Amino acid sequence: MQRFDCIIVGAGFAGLSAAQHLTSQGYKVRVLEARDRVGGRTEMAHFAGRHIDAGGMWLGPTQIHLKTLAARLGAKTYPTPLEGQSQGQAGGYAFRAKGEAFEDAIGLISKVQLGLLLVKLNGYLKTLDPAAPWAGDQAAHLDAYSVASWSDRHIKNKRVRAILNLIVRSVFCAEPEELSFLFFLFYVKAAGGLEVLIEAKPGGAQSLLFHDTLAQMAQQLSAEMPGVVALNQAVKAIDQDDTGVQVLTQDANYHADQVIVAIPPGLVQQLSFSPPLPMARQELLKRQIMGACIKVWVAYERPFWRDAGWNGILFYEDSAFAPVFDATPPGSERGFLAGFFDARCAAQWSEKTQDARKQEVLKTLQRGFGDQALTPIEYFERDWTREAWSQGCYGAFMPPGALSLYGHSVRQAHGRIHWAGTETAIAWSGYVDGAISSGLRAATAVEMDLAGL
Amino acid sequence: MQRFDCIIVGAGFAGLSAAQHLTSQGYKVRVLEARDRVGGRTEMAHFAGRHIDAGGMWLGPTQIHLKTLAARLGAKTYPTPLEGQSQGQAGGYAFRAKGEAFEDAIGLISKVQLGLLLVKLNGYLKTLDPAAPWAGDQAAHLDAYSVASWSDRHIKNKRVRAILNLIVRSVFCAEPEELSFLFFLFYVKAAGGLEVLIEAKPGGAQSLLFHDTLAQMAQQLSAEMPGVVALNQAVKAIDQDDTGVQVLTQDANYHADQVIVAIPPGLVQQLSFSPPLPMARQELLKRQIMGACIKVWVAYERPFWRDAGWNGILFYEDSAFAPVFDATPPGSERGFLAGFFDARCAAQWSEKTQDARKQEVLKTLQRGFGDQALTPIEYFERDWTREAWSQGCYGAFMPPGALSLYGHSVRQAHGRIHWAGTETAIAWSGYVDGAISSGLRAATAVEMDLAGL
Repeated sequence: MQRFDCIIVGAGFAGLSAAQHLTSQGYKVRVLEARDRVGGRTEMAHFAGRHIDAGGMWLGPTQIHLKTLAARLGAKTYPTPLEGQSQGQAGGYAFRAKGEAFEDAIGLISKVQLGLLLVKLNGYLKTLDPAAPWAGDQAAHLDAYSVASWSDRHIKNKRVRAILNLIVRSVFCAEPEELSFLFFLFYVKAAGGLEVLIEAKPGGAQSLLFHDTLAQMAQQLSAEMPGVVALNQAVKAIDQDDTGVQVLTQDANYHADQVIVAIPPGLVQQLSFSPPLPMARQELLKRQIMGACIKVWVAYERPFWRDAGWNGILFYEDSAFAPVFDATPPGSERGFLAGFFDARCAAQWSEKTQDARKQEVLKTLQRGFGDQALTPIEYFERDWTREAWSQGCYGAFMPPGALSLYGHSVRQAHGRIHWAGTETAIAWSGYVDGAISSGLRAATAVEMDLAGL
Repeated sequence: MQRFDCIIVGAGFAGLSAAQHLTSQGYKVRVLEARDRVGGRTEMAHFAGRHIDAGGMWLGPTQIHLKTLAARLGAKTYPTPLEGQSQGQAGGYAFRAKGEAFEDAIGLISKVQLGLLLVKLNGYLKTLDPAAPWAGDQAAHLDAYSVASWSDRHIKNKRVRAILNLIVRSVFCAEPEELSFLFFLFYVKAAGGLEVLIEAKPGGAQSLLFHDTLAQMAQQLSAEMPGVVALNQAVKAIDQDDTGVQVLTQDANYHADQVIVAIPPGLVQQLSFSPPLPMARQELLKRQIMGACIKVWVAYERPFWRDAGWNGILFYEDSAFAPVFDATPPGSERGFLAGFFDARCAAQWSEKTQDARKQEVLKTLQRGFGDQALTPIEYFERDWTREAWSQGCYGAFMPPGALSLYGHSVRQAHGRIHWAGTETAIAWSGYVDGAISSGLRAATAVEMDLAGL
């Protein structure tokens, strides 16, 4: 029976980053992955003659962990196409805006109100510590509100409320009624501010796309560590005592000194732990709910929408398919649009046929770009809510009460078990960048324990 | 291979009631129970020379399903002792009250404010349909608020807010910050009103106790159906097609025409379904969170608290151990108190040793009843949050957003699979009475399908 220094559960970016660090320090590591592939909530697909990201795909310039990884692995990016006009609908008001300047398009009064909202949010954010959002004076109070009840109480302007709702749905893949206002603030702070979080223009989280996919970097990482990642090894149980840890899968029993669990909270809940997890952690896991999301790609002979001056961005509050972005690589003859069914719309449309979804997608694109949108050359979709080994995308959110009551347990090691995964990140939680930094943090904690420090 | 008309998953009162009805109609039924006992969230224990309920124990006179079952099985009740004074603390104010007349004890202004709160709540309840709480005009609005954010907005009086918080913790085993206000209203309506729900005086949900436990009725029900209940049969998967259903456990494979799933939502989530559950149902299950509760019994040589005019009821907002009730049967020489660690206090105290909990319990009882409380003859506790086959008690609650977005799926049959369990009840959801009625409803649905109606 082989004994490892560290077993890592999950070969997403969190687990792979932890493994990469530990192997580079000379430790003996095994990564156990339930799927037949690495990458977690990122995945490469072949579509219309190119590689695309079926999952996470963007890079923001302040995402330093993903950025340095991409630089090291030689993964090249291009700016998300923005030239031209965006279109949207919010609060009963249809608008067009240059680039992403939505605030200029919603009328002067709403623009002022939106500005006041940002001032108010920034007031909360100023004192919020993303490493301990549960510890602030107002934590319990802010956590008692959902985003919807908070905005019902504090935002009078209908358009501004509608814009906030659009943001919540597209960032969290959750409805404003179910998202804790404190969790919303934490997530925004962890990303460095609301503008950074929502924007595709330079500086924003959606500003850069990868020529040959984000997902392929997971394959590169795995290839750098031959023999370390074991696929098709779904972990069932983790038992520890004074002498070490046993990690059980369907077919094998792995022994190690330390363990890093780097899988989504919903899957952690399905594992059996001996001794059991602390109760605060168990209660937290019950309250970490995965967002719901279906990602769609549509390919056209040409990016025809540009002819009419559109930049490809659609943000319709009254469409099930929103938002939409242009994801055409520079120099490509073909045109590519990527968009999402989010939150309750994802749950609803997940029940229908692929053909019904395709019709809904094309109808929305027709609304924005005219009849040419009805004749794509290819259509692709990935329903992340039906992925057994993710249980949703992009990440887990918390309903009211959870973060202030039980959030403090999110990174607390359980004996020899350390926690990674983007939901445990302090910066860019919910993003690939947060996954990577969480893996590095957990790997450092393991090093400390292995060195007896 | 035997084929059953109906397989029932779970031998709590929901599953047993469904089985009892179907076998009485001549159908061939098998109940599969994961535990080595029947009763679910009720359980009989031996304590200080008598039988006690380690789980659910009360009967309210409007709980017609439990009442008729008790009458049929000859289970006798006695009134919860109330003579004398209750004690409590809420909003920084310590009070004593005759019987349960807390409203007389909190000061005139707070009494008036409490009355106004009840009027306001009754206004909402008037139009709320407990069979479809998601369908009301205001459903999404009310569901956006937690009880805490709603009361932060609408209740100015600190004592009244504290009383509402005490009610939420002791009824839902959840914190006011995390409980949807719409779900709160639904639950109150399903019980017939807030007074009925919270009271131990005649008419209330806590007004009657069983001489020989509520739990033993589950054993009686099971004994009436020899060979029907199979213990230690944890179901793993339920697969259905046009010809029937297969129910898989660790050791066996059962075939049936129909299935009733009568287990808590958290356990439903762990089953594998083929074809998979509708997405709305999956999203709902992720949002049904079990309450947290540790139930404690303390026995004394005599019910000494009565000497000083106390009725045994303690309701301290600032104690982890609350509420406490007298559960001494008439004619008993010994005195019995039953009480609870609820919600976040349950999670916190679950981490400590039994001895630490016992000290906390006795300290609270000493505060109410004096030094005699420090010398019990026996102590008993059951931590329901650590019961793998319940995952909490008393029932599941919903955070904001869940009921209005996905609640409509709660009783929708999935092909040959029907849903029972107290969380699916329309009347007395969360109570044994609701469990029984849910079993009868599901059994009738099965009869319809078996008869091709």
